[in-house]
Amino acid sequence: MIVIQNPEPDAWAELTLRPSQSQSIDRQKVQDIFNAVKADGDAALIELTDRYDGHRLSKLVVSTKQPPKIDEELARAIKIAAKNIKTYHAAQQIDSRQIETSPGVECWSRAVGIDRVGLYIPGGTAPLFSTVLMLVIPAQLAKCQEITVVTPPDSSGHLDPVMHWTLDYLGVDQVCLVGGAQAIAALSLGTKSVPRVDKIFGPGNQWVTAAKELSTRYGCAIDMPAGPSEVLIIADQNAKPTFLAADLLSQAEHGPDSQVILLSDSQTLIEETMTELKIQLEDLPRRSITESSLQQSLAISLVDISTCVKWANLYAPEHLILNLVDADAYVDQIRNAGSVFVGPWSSESMGDYASGTNHTLPTAGFARNYSGVSLSSFQKRISYQRISKRGVVELGPAVAKMARAEKLEAHARSIDIRLKSLES
Amino acid sequence: MIVIQNPEPDAWAELTLRPSQSQSIDRQKVQDIFNAVKADGDAALIELTDRYDGHRLSKLVVSTKQPPKIDEELARAIKIAAKNIKTYHAAQQIDSRQIETSPGVECWSRAVGIDRVGLYIPGGTAPLFSTVLMLVIPAQLAKCQEITVVTPPDSSGHLDPVMHWTLDYLGVDQVCLVGGAQAIAALSLGTKSVPRVDKIFGPGNQWVTAAKELSTRYGCAIDMPAGPSEVLIIADQNAKPTFLAADLLSQAEHGPDSQVILLSDSQTLIEETMTELKIQLEDLPRRSITESSLQQSLAISLVDISTCVKWANLYAPEHLILNLVDADAYVDQIRNAGSVFVGPWSSESMGDYASGTNHTLPTAGFARNYSGVSLSSFQKRISYQRISKRGVVELGPAVAKMARAEKLEAHARSIDIRLKSLES
Repeated sequence: MIVIQNPEPDAWAELTLRPSQSQSIDRQKVQDIFNAVKADGDAALIELTDRYDGHRLSKLVVSTKQPPKIDEELARAIKIAAKNIKTYHAAQQIDSRQIETSPGVECWSRAVGIDRVGLYIPGGTAPLFSTVLMLVIPAQLAKCQEITVVTPPDSSGHLDPVMHWTLDYLGVDQVCLVGGAQAIAALSLGTKSVPRVDKIFGPGNQWVTAAKELSTRYGCAIDMPAGPSEVLIIADQNAKPTFLAADLLSQAEHGPDSQVILLSDSQTLIEETMTELKIQLEDLPRRSITESSLQQSLAISLVDISTCVKWANLYAPEHLILNLVDADAYVDQIRNAGSVFVGPWSSESMGDYASGTNHTLPTAGFARNYSGVSLSSFQKRISYQRISKRGVVELGPAVAKMARAEKLEAHARSIDIRLKSLES
Repeated sequence: MIVIQNPEPDAWAELTLRPSQSQSIDRQKVQDIFNAVKADGDAALIELTDRYDGHRLSKLVVSTKQPPKIDEELARAIKIAAKNIKTYHAAQQIDSRQIETSPGVECWSRAVGIDRVGLYIPGGTAPLFSTVLMLVIPAQLAKCQEITVVTPPDSSGHLDPVMHWTLDYLGVDQVCLVGGAQAIAALSLGTKSVPRVDKIFGPGNQWVTAAKELSTRYGCAIDMPAGPSEVLIIADQNAKPTFLAADLLSQAEHGPDSQVILLSDSQTLIEETMTELKIQLEDLPRRSITESSLQQSLAISLVDISTCVKWANLYAPEHLILNLVDADAYVDQIRNAGSVFVGPWSSESMGDYASGTNHTLPTAGFARNYSGVSLSSFQKRISYQRISKRGVVELGPAVAKMARAEKLEAHARSIDIRLKSLES
């Protein structure tokens, strides 16, 4: 990690810039994939899966019935995580409240599940069944009518067994074995096997991200732009260097483009943590990935914890750990973060899997303007107004006046005609 | 209007397609505008405003102090509208609730105003001071820290007087006199006069829409994709054709590309409304715009009101008027709509100006996957978790188990190290 002592405020903005993306995507290639899927549907998906994943599938849709047996302790863990995620997301349901804004004018809103949602579960080095939990559970709570799960085939060309078990446990009947930009194209356009959806969720690599961006031109909504994962830890002198090192490493192992940041008012703590980091790194299985990530990571000492919080708000981290004795005192000062872990016992991994909060969070500074996935991500909110005769009499003249000032005469007349009908 | 009787369900999907956009945008031209603003900042804005709006401005930022006198009745109307919009949006504030998902695991979330927001107020044939109300009020309620308002100069090259008065009334000190794609470029990139923002709101023409789409590549969020305005009315035989005609016209006058739809179970009602439409159209000031819009508009009879609701859900209208005796009975069947007007006295114009709901709504079928602007559009929601020692003991082992199953060893060790520390 790069250690920096008390950087000048002028230098902050530059320090909060993310390491540049490893390579930029050829967007035309993504457009070509969309064109192929539009032209040839399922045949294109099978062809592209063969080309990019190296598996020639006989069918794209796989039933999740008759799930395989999995490790019992793992099954129990997944059930606990599912329960917590369900409890937390169910509590996000907001009851509609009718407000009488003027006499005879009642306004309210109703949350309705988005009809058709597509959930992208990345493949890669390991099957991310935790992302299945994080996306399927809120989609079900939102009562989305069609939930389509897509994921690339595993290294053997099949549906990963743990993912299979998890999907069945959650009551998802089938899954489409397709990944990458072609999966996003299929969800955006629809094919015989993959239904067209209204909104696409889920993390993915740069190709998936570019394809999600393109999907919006085809009328799809997306959860958020995605980038490499990141954590920022603010620690005071009471923090244990062993905890800090473990938390930094648990984020750094995600990928070589992950970034981890440690902020503290104690230079001693930073030095001790750097030493501990080397020790813990020694026998990590994903050591080389982790080392790449650490090379572009920062440990910065600042004058006090309030200054650390200011720096963190400028950086807008995906994950923010407050490893502070008085962590609670800083909770309300956080302005930009995806998810916050309060106190020394709140490791990020708890939120990644099982505390109940969602792990699909804004990265790359998007915590400034996006929220993480929540129940409301799977809903749209429809506004309503019910206006009585009295409402028209009391509020109508003001509406007609404003409409005429905006030179919208027909708007004004839709009031006039109602007022006139009440006179007669 | 095109009158259709009982179309086969097979034909519905095609009927719900919007009339094709008048012309497609040259996206390279939008990119060129961004490049010019990036290179030359304010100078580019002044140059582009001269080229496209025909006004060479001496300064881009105009103070709203010393507002002009405006018609007193109009001032009163704007104040009433502002009060209702404030009342309704203030009620959308959601209190955070802490949930204990497992023993020792507390989760909650906090809504925080997006730091810097940019509000685009279109110019065009008339100054849309109503859009100022609809965007500034929720931004202020959300406590956004920097609210930047941009709007093109009026036909005399100045800030429109009513808009000037409205901005001052709401406590907005200044406004940037720039419109079109160059305004969106300035908000995305920042110039000396126009600060860079985190999220851009507001309606606009196709150039503005294309520029908003491009702004997302520069890290901005946007409220929603925009398209021509539209209304769908569902009416039963008790509806007054005079009201229906007035409501259809009040939407059709927006622009030649607006679409209005009338659905009914009564063919007689449709015929009477078509007759009334011709009468009311006669002396409308925006008659030619309105006629263009009506040419691509539909009046469809269907077997019953439930079928009309099904059709409306497929169309996903921006505005939906339920001019029905038993309108309340259908409220919960609406799945896709921006804003719903319940009952014969609820004209769309009430919501456009003053009922209190927001008039920035999803068009072009985007009501399937987007909500209209609300308080939450100006906020991000940060999730929190506080885990106690007990929480680590009770939930930690499940987290470590799952992390190892996803081959993320360092994630598991961040739990192990805490559990070990508790043993000693």
